[in-house]
Amino acid sequence: MRGFAEAEFVERTARAQALMADHELAALLLTTEPEVRYFTGYLTRFWESPTRPWFLILPANGKPIAVIPSIGADLMGKTWVEDIRTWTSPDLEDDGVTLLGESLREVVPASGRIGLPDGHETHVRMPLADLERLRRELDGCVVAGDSGIIRQLRMVKSAAEIAKIAKACSIADRAFARVPEIAREGVPLEEVFRRFQMLCLEEGADFVPYLAGGAGAGGYDDVISPASETPLQSGDVLMLDTGLIWDGYFCDFDRNWAVSTASDSVTDGHERLIAATEAAFEMAKPGVTASQLHAVMAPFLGEETGAGRLGHGLGMSLTEWPSLIPTDHTPLVDGMVLTLEPGIATAGGVLVHEENIAITETGARWLSTPAAAEISVI
Amino acid sequence: MRGFAEAEFVERTARAQALMADHELAALLLTTEPEVRYFTGYLTRFWESPTRPWFLILPANGKPIAVIPSIGADLMGKTWVEDIRTWTSPDLEDDGVTLLGESLREVVPASGRIGLPDGHETHVRMPLADLERLRRELDGCVVAGDSGIIRQLRMVKSAAEIAKIAKACSIADRAFARVPEIAREGVPLEEVFRRFQMLCLEEGADFVPYLAGGAGAGGYDDVISPASETPLQSGDVLMLDTGLIWDGYFCDFDRNWAVSTASDSVTDGHERLIAATEAAFEMAKPGVTASQLHAVMAPFLGEETGAGRLGHGLGMSLTEWPSLIPTDHTPLVDGMVLTLEPGIATAGGVLVHEENIAITETGARWLSTPAAAEISVI
Repeated sequence: MRGFAEAEFVERTARAQALMADHELAALLLTTEPEVRYFTGYLTRFWESPTRPWFLILPANGKPIAVIPSIGADLMGKTWVEDIRTWTSPDLEDDGVTLLGESLREVVPASGRIGLPDGHETHVRMPLADLERLRRELDGCVVAGDSGIIRQLRMVKSAAEIAKIAKACSIADRAFARVPEIAREGVPLEEVFRRFQMLCLEEGADFVPYLAGGAGAGGYDDVISPASETPLQSGDVLMLDTGLIWDGYFCDFDRNWAVSTASDSVTDGHERLIAATEAAFEMAKPGVTASQLHAVMAPFLGEETGAGRLGHGLGMSLTEWPSLIPTDHTPLVDGMVLTLEPGIATAGGVLVHEENIAITETGARWLSTPAAAEISVI
Repeated sequence: MRGFAEAEFVERTARAQALMADHELAALLLTTEPEVRYFTGYLTRFWESPTRPWFLILPANGKPIAVIPSIGADLMGKTWVEDIRTWTSPDLEDDGVTLLGESLREVVPASGRIGLPDGHETHVRMPLADLERLRRELDGCVVAGDSGIIRQLRMVKSAAEIAKIAKACSIADRAFARVPEIAREGVPLEEVFRRFQMLCLEEGADFVPYLAGGAGAGGYDDVISPASETPLQSGDVLMLDTGLIWDGYFCDFDRNWAVSTASDSVTDGHERLIAATEAAFEMAKPGVTASQLHAVMAPFLGEETGAGRLGHGLGMSLTEWPSLIPTDHTPLVDGMVLTLEPGIATAGGVLVHEENIAITETGARWLSTPAAAEISVI
């Protein structure tokens, strides 16, 4: 089912407001796509346009207040939000700042504190000069950080959210299974990228915002580069890593294939990646920390590759909190969705493997269909 | 050809540095994808991940300095940038802030001014708390706005940039021409969205980050909503508006089709949209202002729809400066790329039409193949 029952937003709002009370915040001010969508369900690709700022105010009580460009009023009107205030944007003199300031002052008492997400993995999606102007106009109220409230909430998913991520994963599963239809010796990597996105769409993706990958003899150099025009060659390892979207939720996992033949180094490396992934899967349950998942994978991976980030949260964004790194001691909680993403050096470069899991009361469950230890040959 | 000759980046950097001298800025600090790419050519979909901040420093003289997560070092090493400083990100204690501060202090004299884009259509893509920490650590130097330098530069495209946008437009042209293969009475709109993205990819798009559209009897309500599951019906107008990417540059235009039959209101509305577009095209040349293009289109469109934004700049982002609105008096310049995007009310809702043009020394040229006055029937 697309969308969410209204109860989902009621609950998210109530949980946020309880945390706001703990942190003495009179309102939250939200400016980014996932932050606004989290409390409203407002879903559009229109955020791709950087022209207009969008604001959501979460007051201490009651529903969120949308302060948005008039072009979004119709669509916002279809959500559970009732208080929708608009201006004609872009306005070169005052692009919503006065309206936002007035709206904040209605719900924030003099010298009250407004929480704006300001920590890791966040940014403020409005012109900096406008934020400074807002601060001056809010004379008396303080724009502070959000004390990690948004992070804390979004890190733990509802069953309905996990179902959407699982659906995205199942679409990618089917697309990955069809890669032998499009990739073989002689096909340029950029053609593989294009055809793979088409497979994702054909299998049901709404959009494919993220696709990275690589191909090289016995391994690849890099996992973030755009596709080259180089044709696949015998002995290459091909990797495709996709973040496709279904109803606003991402999957994020990859698959590796040996082109025509796999060297011992590749075969062995892939087996160790799967062993690392399975070790983390077996260990993952509430109370275990992100850093412990890192620690259980690292010994499989060698010094350099084992030291990096070996997975992360996943949901409305391609990557979310927590990070599977030695210094992130976030305890896992029932409802978290994580990627397990170990990398390993081979004779030809690196191999990276990735799966998606959900944390349950008693352990973890696979959202992606886990890959076999033996690397597929195409 | 993908990428740019190094001369392109040399020239962009020199022009920026000349403007920086005018505005007494000792460095620019850049944090967003198009800003970083503009001076480096650094192209990756990895920005879809909000986890890591990326920084580029443009000093008063010499090449840019990249201060980036180590995961990007290899790819940045393939650009013309030589000074690449990395840290292992995410670092929960210090996610590049100290390294960035040290790097800035090397090129900015005591009490020097650092320009950070802060105006319309910009945001700062780093955690706000880290920006505040940076400001404290830069004790003596001032982080100011960029005085619109980035805007001024990016608004005027080189021939090589326009060639990339033209290529994106030609891909979309071919995909739009094939819409009758995928859209007809009875096909759900969400299926049309998915199949249209596949056509864009098949015709050569690298990615299709943006697709909006609508369908409704005699017009549609909204141009930013996701696709519904409702099947197309006889008498509907279908609109598809895509921002697809080729080599990091967008097109942004749409097409309308009448499903099976077109009412007089639709036929007439579409003709007036084309007439408005042509009037703006005929008028567009250096020295004419964005607001004048708005003014020439508005009389074709009726009171409400004629008052909105009727087009905008286009390039590395889906929407850029200037805006075709009554208050934007930016003069057109040889090398600008614009969308002309008039909307009109019909009996059933609205119709929106959009084309892409480039400003030349003597007038304008079409980058999209302009649609006929008569709406296509499928």
